[in-house]
Amino acid sequence: MNAEIIAVGSEMLTPYRQDTNSLYLTGKLNELGVAVAFKTITGDNRKHLASAVRTALSRVDIVVLSGGLGPTEDDLTREATAEGFGVRLRRDPDLIAHLYTRAAARRITLTRNNEKQADVIEGAIVLPNALGSAPGQWMDTVVGKHRKLAMLLPGPPHELKAMFEAECLPRLREILPQRHIATRVLKAAMIGESAADARIAPIYTQYKDVDTTILAHLGDIELRLNCSKPVVELAQARVDELAGKIEEELEDFIYSSQGESLEQIVLYFLEMRGGSLAVAESCTGGMVAERLTSVSGSSRAFVGGAVVYSNRLKTELAGVDAELIARHGAVSREVAIALAEGIRERCGSTLGLGITGVAGPTGGSEEKPVGLVYLAVSDADGTEVVEKRFPGDRAGIRFYASQQGLDLVRRRLM
Amino acid sequence: MNAEIIAVGSEMLTPYRQDTNSLYLTGKLNELGVAVAFKTITGDNRKHLASAVRTALSRVDIVVLSGGLGPTEDDLTREATAEGFGVRLRRDPDLIAHLYTRAAARRITLTRNNEKQADVIEGAIVLPNALGSAPGQWMDTVVGKHRKLAMLLPGPPHELKAMFEAECLPRLREILPQRHIATRVLKAAMIGESAADARIAPIYTQYKDVDTTILAHLGDIELRLNCSKPVVELAQARVDELAGKIEEELEDFIYSSQGESLEQIVLYFLEMRGGSLAVAESCTGGMVAERLTSVSGSSRAFVGGAVVYSNRLKTELAGVDAELIARHGAVSREVAIALAEGIRERCGSTLGLGITGVAGPTGGSEEKPVGLVYLAVSDADGTEVVEKRFPGDRAGIRFYASQQGLDLVRRRLM
Repeated sequence: MNAEIIAVGSEMLTPYRQDTNSLYLTGKLNELGVAVAFKTITGDNRKHLASAVRTALSRVDIVVLSGGLGPTEDDLTREATAEGFGVRLRRDPDLIAHLYTRAAARRITLTRNNEKQADVIEGAIVLPNALGSAPGQWMDTVVGKHRKLAMLLPGPPHELKAMFEAECLPRLREILPQRHIATRVLKAAMIGESAADARIAPIYTQYKDVDTTILAHLGDIELRLNCSKPVVELAQARVDELAGKIEEELEDFIYSSQGESLEQIVLYFLEMRGGSLAVAESCTGGMVAERLTSVSGSSRAFVGGAVVYSNRLKTELAGVDAELIARHGAVSREVAIALAEGIRERCGSTLGLGITGVAGPTGGSEEKPVGLVYLAVSDADGTEVVEKRFPGDRAGIRFYASQQGLDLVRRRLM
Repeated sequence: MNAEIIAVGSEMLTPYRQDTNSLYLTGKLNELGVAVAFKTITGDNRKHLASAVRTALSRVDIVVLSGGLGPTEDDLTREATAEGFGVRLRRDPDLIAHLYTRAAARRITLTRNNEKQADVIEGAIVLPNALGSAPGQWMDTVVGKHRKLAMLLPGPPHELKAMFEAECLPRLREILPQRHIATRVLKAAMIGESAADARIAPIYTQYKDVDTTILAHLGDIELRLNCSKPVVELAQARVDELAGKIEEELEDFIYSSQGESLEQIVLYFLEMRGGSLAVAESCTGGMVAERLTSVSGSSRAFVGGAVVYSNRLKTELAGVDAELIARHGAVSREVAIALAEGIRERCGSTLGLGITGVAGPTGGSEEKPVGLVYLAVSDADGTEVVEKRFPGDRAGIRFYASQQGLDLVRRRLM
């Protein structure tokens, strides 16, 4: 069976807003073995929406509508869907009573307009909304000679998810053949998508029953392995086997084999080794610290550090010799080392990380171009430093540098 | 005239990828006075795509397709669009010559497959691609009795934008009635969407010729005013007049009247006053520093600071008396003040900002719940401190705190 997702709302036809519910719905439908063949976005316009519903009924088996179930004049999904199906609406007295009871409990006065939320499409079942006032609807009917399923869900994402999980999933599971899906998510840092793919394509193409997706982000790739079998253990064995072979091939580029973030892995390694980290950041301006502290519980292994944007602060907060800066320049191998060692000593941590570079777009020179970054990590065994030239704009260079810094700490701890 | 945007690509029917080209295209079409009535996303499937094109031709005047113009078997937009229009493809010998010349210059060997990029839809004009190999196509034709425009554009956003601007915009401007649009973007910090709307709705609803959109983000709202008139000066006068009245109503909540970010405004005010800023961040963990340094040239007014996640670092890097922390707790009015004053002194800046709070989800208590944040700003005239209780999860609380911190500095500089 295949599906179409129709998102309803004029705000999603502006340059400012995207439909995001469809990503969630697509994931859930895929898990059930349903492919999404079309996504349509249309505005609060009865004629347009009815046409979208008719088109969907002509080309897919399952139609999922989101939005347009509120009480205002702009909320037309009920009317337009009924029109698309060529059936009527009936106003449900029980539902009206429920709306008034709900409003009374919340000390809200309903206007007549609200009663349209009690309109039910002929042949539809009402789906209760645990988190909002707009009820959903479920249709399992025959159009022409074909069985068609349709769901009308509220637009707010938390209401949509709660209703889909409580009301639609159990019904879909009863109708659709049982499937058992196993998933693994591997992550690798500082390796390009094509470099990684060249190495692992010969492996994953041999697993035709595992669906492998590579998602590339800046300095990071995510490998999603999905397999569906009649028995979940079989599916799990296949993705685990493939994951093992990919980990063997990509070796220490892989930092996570269960979907954890690089920040989480660095903090986990630090805690496991009883270590602690302090950072001195120049060109990343606090991004490494911000990323680490975004993880709850990071204070167990991350003590903090300094954003040493000016040369004076490199000396004042990280103890870098002013003469060293004058001699080699703020962006240099020597200053990166001094930052890592200085912040480690100043903060009393077991590891210190120092980053200095040219984030651009201005400030580059022939000798020290935009994108040049030095990163150093220091611990009781000594200090290592790397020189990198990152591509892209200011935001990209800064992110690459933060990613490389975290990866350097991870590798030091391995 | 109205339009439908069709994004082609199976990756956009997975749970992982969204179509983003349509936001750009919608903005450009809106500027030309064209409303987008539908957006459709479909996969690399000839039957599905041909059906989408037919549907679009039946309901809108302008069809914009993106993606599927490459040389692989999955690239079916040319074939499917021709099928949707009910016309043929012809292979253009000049275009084949061009493809081989381009490949030779890049020392790439073309396979026979690549020649499909020279297929042109009957009646279409070829649009050169300045940034890639896939040419686009432009159709201005009559279907039934109606004039229809269609554009086939490449999927990569930078190729699509360059081609749309160089090739499609001039053609659309010739066909569509001249319009002159004036736009203003106002931004306000730390005021809720409904609170702001309650104050300004009575004003903007009187400007029926100005389209006012409120976009709410965490701790930030953006007011977009658009007006279209036959003469651009008239449109500009209307948006400026409305912008002035909104600024009067929202007073110092408005931090920007030309779309600048809060970071940019803080740095601008600092430079204008010859000032400099240092920050000592606990719960925000470097987010304020990271946001400020994301702006190019920020080093002229931002010196850096400390991420004082552990109590030891509050003392070591920001000079906070350890006894003060023991007496009042790390999350307290007194420690926020000491952080602001200490970091200002240590870094020799004219302003110091200190932030300490409970970001959660753990670490809260009845007395000091998750979301409680103290922020202090210090300068030569003294120190002020505020206590806030922010809602939401860890990421939300941290962002609110960084936003409030920046806003505190802005207000201090006003």
